[in-house]
Amino acid sequence: MPPEALFSRDVHDFRAALTRVQKNAIKSPLIDAGIAGRELRLKAENLQPGGAFKIRCATNIVEQLSAGQLRGGIVTASAGNFAPAVAMAAARHRVPVTCHVPANAAAVKLAALERLGVAVVPHPFEDWWRIMATRDAGAGAGLFLHPVCEVDGMVGNGTIALELLQDWPELDTVVVPFGGGGLICGIAAAMRRLKPGVRIVACELDAAAPLRAARDAGRPVRIARRATFANGPGEQSVLDAMWPLLRDLVDEVIVVPEEDAVAAFRRLVLDHHLVVEAQTAIAFAAALTPALEDRKVAVILSGGNIDRDALVRNLALTK
Amino acid sequence: MPPEALFSRDVHDFRAALTRVQKNAIKSPLIDAGIAGRELRLKAENLQPGGAFKIRCATNIVEQLSAGQLRGGIVTASAGNFAPAVAMAAARHRVPVTCHVPANAAAVKLAALERLGVAVVPHPFEDWWRIMATRDAGAGAGLFLHPVCEVDGMVGNGTIALELLQDWPELDTVVVPFGGGGLICGIAAAMRRLKPGVRIVACELDAAAPLRAARDAGRPVRIARRATFANGPGEQSVLDAMWPLLRDLVDEVIVVPEEDAVAAFRRLVLDHHLVVEAQTAIAFAAALTPALEDRKVAVILSGGNIDRDALVRNLALTK
Repeated sequence: MPPEALFSRDVHDFRAALTRVQKNAIKSPLIDAGIAGRELRLKAENLQPGGAFKIRCATNIVEQLSAGQLRGGIVTASAGNFAPAVAMAAARHRVPVTCHVPANAAAVKLAALERLGVAVVPHPFEDWWRIMATRDAGAGAGLFLHPVCEVDGMVGNGTIALELLQDWPELDTVVVPFGGGGLICGIAAAMRRLKPGVRIVACELDAAAPLRAARDAGRPVRIARRATFANGPGEQSVLDAMWPLLRDLVDEVIVVPEEDAVAAFRRLVLDHHLVVEAQTAIAFAAALTPALEDRKVAVILSGGNIDRDALVRNLALTK
Repeated sequence: MPPEALFSRDVHDFRAALTRVQKNAIKSPLIDAGIAGRELRLKAENLQPGGAFKIRCATNIVEQLSAGQLRGGIVTASAGNFAPAVAMAAARHRVPVTCHVPANAAAVKLAALERLGVAVVPHPFEDWWRIMATRDAGAGAGLFLHPVCEVDGMVGNGTIALELLQDWPELDTVVVPFGGGGLICGIAAAMRRLKPGVRIVACELDAAAPLRAARDAGRPVRIARRATFANGPGEQSVLDAMWPLLRDLVDEVIVVPEEDAVAAFRRLVLDHHLVVEAQTAIAFAAALTPALEDRKVAVILSGGNIDRDALVRNLALTK
């Protein structure tokens, strides 16, 4: 099913997804950041089972698969958070999971996969990226689930929008970390049905901004990423398959300097007492930009799976 | 008002307190710890404004003071979390706050006090402890508020019990960090009115267990504390003023080895993505003991204010 099928999903589809998602996910708390002069709340998806929003995505996919589809097992390619979520969702149905990973994936994520019984297959980053771009994981049995592009996965992510509006009907802006786009497109598609006009903001680091580059060029372009606190170096672009959604659904991209994201990381950990992935700190930094100070902003804390060493290293980056 | 006045407070008093407390505090999330074979949920008071449950306590006191009582300002003695909470509650009424602190208080807490405009007066630990025991802070104007013994403060803490039962009517055990006793007595007194029979469990480190010592001796006794990851060395005992409450309201004390508390700290931060004070990790460790595995346990994550250096140091204590 092409990602554009997301456009045809309606309110009932997102509500039905929420019922499925609740089998494995919590309703994550929406916490007032308590920052003077700001209406800014934190949607703490880092507190989900598996430590990230991906449990919504995986659950909404797996719960709709037939016994026949599940019979050969499930295969995915994931830098980390999708695969453990698939493993949790598949465990209900006693289905084995294989995961192709990039060699630079966080050790804590690989260890978690192995604890969940996932068969892990490492690849050089470029080879892994090719699997992500082509869905071709080579020979071997199993149904391939893409960590970003599955329509039912995006609908699962869109359940966040339902919860946001339950807790804060007045919100007017959602700030979302940008990885592959599955999170932001799911939330945006749901929000468009539920409360059109809510502004959907994607966030990137200035050193690694493929979505900004695609918007500037009018199409996905490959960019060279510098190494940042959030990611290793490499080339990356917006996935071709996701571009029609991203072009239509994202209202704005805020590009953040690395030092602001590092300060935001520290602030989330030490002032708000929430452990987050570096990617998530980028969104918090974006939410704090002056451009958004008059708005009612929910920022999605997408995940919290970070190595102890990376946590300590990131805390040490500022005084 | 002697602490025993707590025994005469009824359900209506706790409900009225909750209405006051909500002016400054959030309803903290109750998060399923997701541990197989356990019914264990985390009451995340570390996500409160000011980073601890003390905002409930301070708000319920300050909101009931008259203009005359507030006129001379407020004085307190606090190792940290009560004073910023008082400052926040007092800010609504533009009342100045002075705080006497022990010299070993966490730097992050002192810095936070100064940012809140609190006048900070440091003392050697023994002198500070005498202020805590006698309420005599020396010359100087202002109404003295005790961080532990104020009845209205304990009633404010008891609002946690109301929220716990709203979210989880079936719970049968509450595990609470033990500092001075204001938190556990407030929760216990409320629970006795709301759902008698819920087991109230206090937690201490084996290297610093004044409550266990008092229960063994039948009265408060001074013990020599070894230095632990949670506290510096020193002598300490249960406050005489609190003993009648603690003797009556606490059902059980679980004493935890330091290594278990350190492992629990690491687990809260890296698996649950919640930053907590060392004191709080002791309660999580206690909640994980085999003795409680068949029970429906809520553990109170009382606070999250920890120095970056202490956070990093505690994470380094285990592999």
